[in-house]
Amino acid sequence: MRISILGGAGFIGRKLAARLASEGTLGGREITALTLFDVAAAPRPEAKFPVHVVVGDLVDLPKEAIPDETDIVFHMAAVVSAAAEADYDLGWRVNLHGTEAVVHACRRLSRPPRVVFTSSIATFSGGQNAVLTDDSRQIPTGSYGAQKAAAELVLADASRRGFLDVVSLRLPTIIVRPGRPNKAASSFISAIIREPLLGLPTELPVPEGFAVWVGSTRRVVEWLLHAAAMDTKPLGLDRSINLPGISVTVAKMLEALDAVKPGASALVKRVEDPVIAAIVSEWPAAFEPVRARAFGFAPHEPLIDVVRAFVEDDLEATRRERGLA
Amino acid sequence: MRISILGGAGFIGRKLAARLASEGTLGGREITALTLFDVAAAPRPEAKFPVHVVVGDLVDLPKEAIPDETDIVFHMAAVVSAAAEADYDLGWRVNLHGTEAVVHACRRLSRPPRVVFTSSIATFSGGQNAVLTDDSRQIPTGSYGAQKAAAELVLADASRRGFLDVVSLRLPTIIVRPGRPNKAASSFISAIIREPLLGLPTELPVPEGFAVWVGSTRRVVEWLLHAAAMDTKPLGLDRSINLPGISVTVAKMLEALDAVKPGASALVKRVEDPVIAAIVSEWPAAFEPVRARAFGFAPHEPLIDVVRAFVEDDLEATRRERGLA
Repeated sequence: MRISILGGAGFIGRKLAARLASEGTLGGREITALTLFDVAAAPRPEAKFPVHVVVGDLVDLPKEAIPDETDIVFHMAAVVSAAAEADYDLGWRVNLHGTEAVVHACRRLSRPPRVVFTSSIATFSGGQNAVLTDDSRQIPTGSYGAQKAAAELVLADASRRGFLDVVSLRLPTIIVRPGRPNKAASSFISAIIREPLLGLPTELPVPEGFAVWVGSTRRVVEWLLHAAAMDTKPLGLDRSINLPGISVTVAKMLEALDAVKPGASALVKRVEDPVIAAIVSEWPAAFEPVRARAFGFAPHEPLIDVVRAFVEDDLEATRRERGLA
Repeated sequence: MRISILGGAGFIGRKLAARLASEGTLGGREITALTLFDVAAAPRPEAKFPVHVVVGDLVDLPKEAIPDETDIVFHMAAVVSAAAEADYDLGWRVNLHGTEAVVHACRRLSRPPRVVFTSSIATFSGGQNAVLTDDSRQIPTGSYGAQKAAAELVLADASRRGFLDVVSLRLPTIIVRPGRPNKAASSFISAIIREPLLGLPTELPVPEGFAVWVGSTRRVVEWLLHAAAMDTKPLGLDRSINLPGISVTVAKMLEALDAVKPGASALVKRVEDPVIAAIVSEWPAAFEPVRARAFGFAPHEPLIDVVRAFVEDDLEATRRERGLA
C-alpha cells in the first residue's frame, strides 16, 4: 500500500508519518511506500519502507507528490485560518485551487485513491450556545472556513465522479499544540495547558466559562487512520464527517491541568481580549456527531488523558525546541 | 445607475435587459448605462440609456464587462446543468473560476457593487418527499449544484470582505422556457406546457403525481430586480435565499394547460423514462422559504397565470423561431 501525505511537514502530518512508520501497516495492509509532500522538507521518519520527501507548491503539484498506484492520500496541506484571513488571495489559491490540483493529480492515476481531507469546524458558525447536528449547514465566518467548505464540495463531486474516494473530516480545534503561542485567535486554547506545563505564564483572553469543541492530537491521528481504511459506501453523497470531539470549558481545561501538575493553573493570567473573544465566540462550541459514531470513529478520551498525553509525547521536544531545557 | 448583466444573451438575461430598458429605472433610481456580457453577442434592447454589448470568456472577463462605477452586476453566466455534468472541466472552469473572475473584477472597482447571483435548487438534494427549510444544508447530486454551492461560498466571503455586496438567489426550475425540447433532464417540465400550446405532441417521462419546485419567468425577473434593490444588512453572513416558488405536480400543470387551451393535454403522451425519472427524483420538490418572504420577495402567482403569461409573452416568438408560423 502506497501512501502520500500532503502537508507532511505540519504538526499533524509529522505525527501521522511517525505513526505509519512505526506501525508499518494501515487497515491491516502492509505499507510499501510513503511520500511526504510540503512547501518545506518534511522530516523523514525511520521506517522499513521507502520514505520519499517531496518539496513544492500544492497548486503546481509535482507528479512525485502522488505517484501512480498511490492508495491513500492524506490531504492536509493548507494555509491556516489566521493566514487565510490576512491574505485573501493566498488562502483561496492554496486552500481551494490547491485542492483542485489534488483532484487533477488523482484523476491521472491508474486507479482512484482514497483521499482523506482535513476540513474544519471553522466551516460552521453558531457560537457558544449552538449544538450542531450532522444536518447543520455551513455558514463560515471567515475565509478559511469558506475555503474548506468549498474544497469539500470539490472533493465530494470528484468522488461522485469516481476520480477519487474522499472522506472529509471536519477537525475540531486540536489540543495540545506544541510550539509557541502565536497570533491565531485559537492560540490560547493550547497555550493555557502547554505554557504552564513548561513553567511559563500565559494569558487567557476569554472568561473561564467559555466553551470550545476540541480534539486531541492522538485522537485526530486515530480518526485520520480510520478514515483511510473505512468502508465509504454507506456515506452516500455526504462525504463529510463531524467528528466526536468534546465540548470543554476553559475552567475544565485548567482543572485537568492542575490534576496533572498541581498549582500549574496559577500561571494562567486572566487578561480579557475583546477582539479575540469576538472571533472565537463565533465558533460552534458543541456538536452531536451521530454519523461519526455510526461509522466507527472512536469516541474521545477524557480531558485529563489529553494533558497527560501531551506530557508524554510532546513536552520534552517542545522544551528543547524552545531552548528551555 | 450602471448595470451589467453577465449572461445577457441567455433566456432570463434577455428578459431582464428588456425589462430594464422599458422601465428605465431600478429601485427608484435612473439607469444611466447597461452592459450585456456573454459568450455570444446579446440582443440590444431599445433603451433611453446607452447599452453596451461585450463578448468574451467569463474566466478572462474583459474590463468592459463590468466598467468602473458599476452599481449592480447580475451574474447569471453559467454552464447549465446537463452541460456541466457532461464536461467536468468546463463546468468547474466557468461556474467556479468564472465566479472568481467576477470577484476580482469587482475588487478593482472604485466602490463595491451589488452582485445578484443566480444559484440553484440543484445545490440541494432530498427528492419528492423533502420539504426544505431555510436551514437545510446543501448536498448537491450533480456537478452543476456543487459548482453553484461553491460559488455561493466564494461570493459570500468576498461580500464579508467588502469587495462586493452579494445576494445569491437559489432559483427554482423555471417555467415556461421557450425554444425546443432538449436533452436536459428538466426539459419536459416546460415542454409539457409549451409543446401542446404550439400544437405539438410531447412526452412525459414521469408519473403525473410527480412534483417539482418551479418559478415563472416573470416572477424570476421580479425576484432579480428585488435582490438588486433590497437592503442587504439584515441578511447577515447568510447571503443566499431560497425563493418563494411553488411546488406543483405534473397533473396540476396539465390541468392549468387545459384551462388555458381546452384539450391541449391530450398531446402529452406518457412514456416513462427511468433514466430521467432517476435524475429528477433527486431534486427537492418543496421548500418553506420563510426568509425570502421576510425580505420582501414577492409570492408566486397561480399556475394558470404562468401558462397565460407564456402565451402572452413568448408563444408567438417561439412559433416564429421554430418556423411554425
